Amino acid sequence: MTTRRARRTVGGIAQLPWRRLVNPFRPLEIVSADEVESIHRASLRVLAEVGVEVLGDLALDLLAASGAAVDRLARRVRFDPAQIEELVALAPSTFRLQARNPERFLDFGGRNLVFCAVGGPAFVSDLDRGRRAGTFADMCDYVRLIGALDVLHQEGGGPLEPTDIPVPIRHLEMYRAFATLLDKSWHCLGFGRTVVDDAIEIACLVRGVTRDDLVREPSLMTIINTNSPLRLDGPMSDGLIEMAVHGQPVVATPFTLAGAMSPVTVAGALAEQNAEALFMVALGQLARPGALFVYGGFTSNVDMRTGAPAFGTPESVKAQLATGQLARRYGLPWRSSNATASNVVDAQAAYESEMAVWGGVMGGVNLLYQGAGWLEGGLTASFEKLILDAEILQMMSEVLQPLVVDEASLGLEAIAEVGPGGHFFGAAHTLERYETAFYRPILSDWRNFETWAEDGARTATERANRVWKQLLAEYEPPPLDPAVAEALDAFVERRKREIGTSG
Amino acid sequence: MTTRRARRTVGGIAQLPWRRLVNPFRPLEIVSADEVESIHRASLRVLAEVGVEVLGDLALDLLAASGAAVDRLARRVRFDPAQIEELVALAPSTFRLQARNPERFLDFGGRNLVFCAVGGPAFVSDLDRGRRAGTFADMCDYVRLIGALDVLHQEGGGPLEPTDIPVPIRHLEMYRAFATLLDKSWHCLGFGRTVVDDAIEIACLVRGVTRDDLVREPSLMTIINTNSPLRLDGPMSDGLIEMAVHGQPVVATPFTLAGAMSPVTVAGALAEQNAEALFMVALGQLARPGALFVYGGFTSNVDMRTGAPAFGTPESVKAQLATGQLARRYGLPWRSSNATASNVVDAQAAYESEMAVWGGVMGGVNLLYQGAGWLEGGLTASFEKLILDAEILQMMSEVLQPLVVDEASLGLEAIAEVGPGGHFFGAAHTLERYETAFYRPILSDWRNFETWAEDGARTATERANRVWKQLLAEYEPPPLDPAVAEALDAFVERRKREIGTSG
Repeated sequence: MTTRRARRTVGGIAQLPWRRLVNPFRPLEIVSADEVESIHRASLRVLAEVGVEVLGDLALDLLAASGAAVDRLARRVRFDPAQIEELVALAPSTFRLQARNPERFLDFGGRNLVFCAVGGPAFVSDLDRGRRAGTFADMCDYVRLIGALDVLHQEGGGPLEPTDIPVPIRHLEMYRAFATLLDKSWHCLGFGRTVVDDAIEIACLVRGVTRDDLVREPSLMTIINTNSPLRLDGPMSDGLIEMAVHGQPVVATPFTLAGAMSPVTVAGALAEQNAEALFMVALGQLARPGALFVYGGFTSNVDMRTGAPAFGTPESVKAQLATGQLARRYGLPWRSSNATASNVVDAQAAYESEMAVWGGVMGGVNLLYQGAGWLEGGLTASFEKLILDAEILQMMSEVLQPLVVDEASLGLEAIAEVGPGGHFFGAAHTLERYETAFYRPILSDWRNFETWAEDGARTATERANRVWKQLLAEYEPPPLDPAVAEALDAFVERRKREIGTSG
Repeated sequence: MTTRRARRTVGGIAQLPWRRLVNPFRPLEIVSADEVESIHRASLRVLAEVGVEVLGDLALDLLAASGAAVDRLARRVRFDPAQIEELVALAPSTFRLQARNPERFLDFGGRNLVFCAVGGPAFVSDLDRGRRAGTFADMCDYVRLIGALDVLHQEGGGPLEPTDIPVPIRHLEMYRAFATLLDKSWHCLGFGRTVVDDAIEIACLVRGVTRDDLVREPSLMTIINTNSPLRLDGPMSDGLIEMAVHGQPVVATPFTLAGAMSPVTVAGALAEQNAEALFMVALGQLARPGALFVYGGFTSNVDMRTGAPAFGTPESVKAQLATGQLARRYGLPWRSSNATASNVVDAQAAYESEMAVWGGVMGGVNLLYQGAGWLEGGLTASFEKLILDAEILQMMSEVLQPLVVDEASLGLEAIAEVGPGGHFFGAAHTLERYETAFYRPILSDWRNFETWAEDGARTATERANRVWKQLLAEYEPPPLDPAVAEALDAFVERRKREIGTSG
């Protein structure tokens, strides 16, 4: 027990140690097995009758060669149900992802649960500087915090866009930052072959392995989104194929906001989501049989009065639970998200995120993407939200630990010793255990009102501001072999020159 | 679908209609059946070997007459395990509670889920007036809001103490307020025979029934707490017996904060909780075989560095899940709570409450007491927290509604009609459903950042302040027969005179 609870305390901020998580609970089921089949059949009909518009030539070539019905002019691909089922069955149900630090490998699928940080926002915000376009300096600070927060297993492909770096070379600077500031695994970008290929080169370089090794020891993953409904754009299909060819896992995630990009019903949104997800998994198998995939579910809904996307809603929780059932039907790991539409780190941000985290964990999610930091429907990465979410995730990680019931924990002697009307503060049973008995928060303030008020009456968001600053002040990069760092720099600088001259 | 979603809109605040809830999910289990038995046996050993200190003479008389081992001098009662099991088995597994409005009856036990408002705080707070001792005017406003919020099934026995009313007559003014301002069921106080007996009289009067009728149609409930560890005080045992004798249900709730009033381990706290809960249920059966009980679980933990109570913690979630298993083992309805230690309506208040609400609902809770309004470890009833919790509960109520999967909801025609790259805003399938397709929030703001910022950049807590004021401004009391109101006034005034002259 003492070992399990051992904490890493940095400047008074105690955290539970980095640990892989296994979900002990049987996943919640919201639809019947028959209803899962109904959604499955509906999605196969969509793929057979409506089809998917595929903008990438490489993908069209692969699809045409596979025998799928390809309308080259319309770039529309229709798939025979039997072929889809055969291809999807080739994707493994579990896989392991390596990181720079060999101890930080992650397992996907089964009952494994991975918490990944936010990826993708264009803006960044904190209480001091407000909301602004992201810069490389912001991104690096954010990545340092992702490294410092032990509850986060993984970086998510750029917590915010470093908009001060030119787009053609941006991915190189991002990857160099991930590879040097983190010893955890990270996501690469997925829009096109170049950003994938450069990531593969860096992963090989940092881990000291060849591209062949990397196939046997996957070390990168990325998110591939459809342009829902039923469209896969060229850069995305190119990126998907490049990842698959090199044996690196893809999180195939349709962007099915019900009412806008998918039917206004949760069942209809799921049918469309399932069609698009299966399509991507099948395409990957054409590129490399046995290609690694995570089934991504991102079904939520829009506010039909304004068209604004909503997250952490009851509909999104239902979609999460049903998506878990669908992913398990195909034997695929399942990705969901911690999302909120709130514009500020307030009670709404907390309750929408809790809805999403509980919906995911109760549904048996394997990869909780956007796990920490996401604000404002994903437009902003917030420094305070990162800390708030770290607390939410760390609490959840502790709920998943076993409740020990044995003679010692039942404590009958202590109950007899204290007797009616006494208290347990001084009992031997308490003294032996009190330091590690209970969850110790990162952010929560449990002091009484008077003490809290005298100390400044700070809200959780204001306290989060202090926490990230302290973590950042005390951040130390994980040790990196200087020769590797040098080789990494040389690669990045060479590629920047190449891109610069060819651009 | 339209009917289910029909909303009551008051001044722009849309709510889902008042509805009873049934939890469709199989309760989560955190301990094995064997471990449930271990806790059960440990608690029976506590009752047999350590016993409970009982301060009330009436209870001691009943216990002695039953054959339990009663040490009159020490007021210590030890129970034979077989006798406890026999008595507990007499308590029904389900019951129905009537309200003034016959349509607002509630079912307890099974898969039924009841959301009850906060009960008991001494303080009240809102953003305008801050934190202060409660007054009768505050209490009445708060009760009006409990009436106005359709997601709340029940009032909880006084959302805050009206400290400006003398204690001996306070209960009468509270009951008159509940009976006139609400047509929902409410909790009476439980400390002694007088407060119970006056409540029974008022319940009969308002419902137009006799005391014998009331036994057949229970219409009141109350919380009875132990003074943990293992002590039942005189007013509480008297109140418990008075409720049982008159056929009104009791929520028997040990106050087992691990580390302080119970062992520092969750298993030990559960063993003690179970001993105390079973003791109260058994005592009630001695007063009236078949007396109605809800198994109350309130196990959380203290912060061992300060002794301050903590709520919504991982340990409290585990205790919730295990308590549900224990209550079901005895065939008793189970009560849990929505609790937070936060001193302010912030992100912490939201995430701790979400932990408690999800822990309860996933565990199959039947009565979620303190469901809305509780702040600061139960010391304060907050007007803004009431609205925040109403949103949290209403979202959860919607998660519990079925996900419809049928030909119409799968929407294949809509997917075919829209096709790749289109959008669903104008599809016939959308237009037929958009008004009622999705959850509509009370509090959440889903507008984009710019619109939200231009409109004042209000946090959820600031918006909650507006919501309760608007609900209060538009509140209308439920119609009450003037003859009943007159009889109620006459009763209250007579009792006040009696208490005043005898006091």
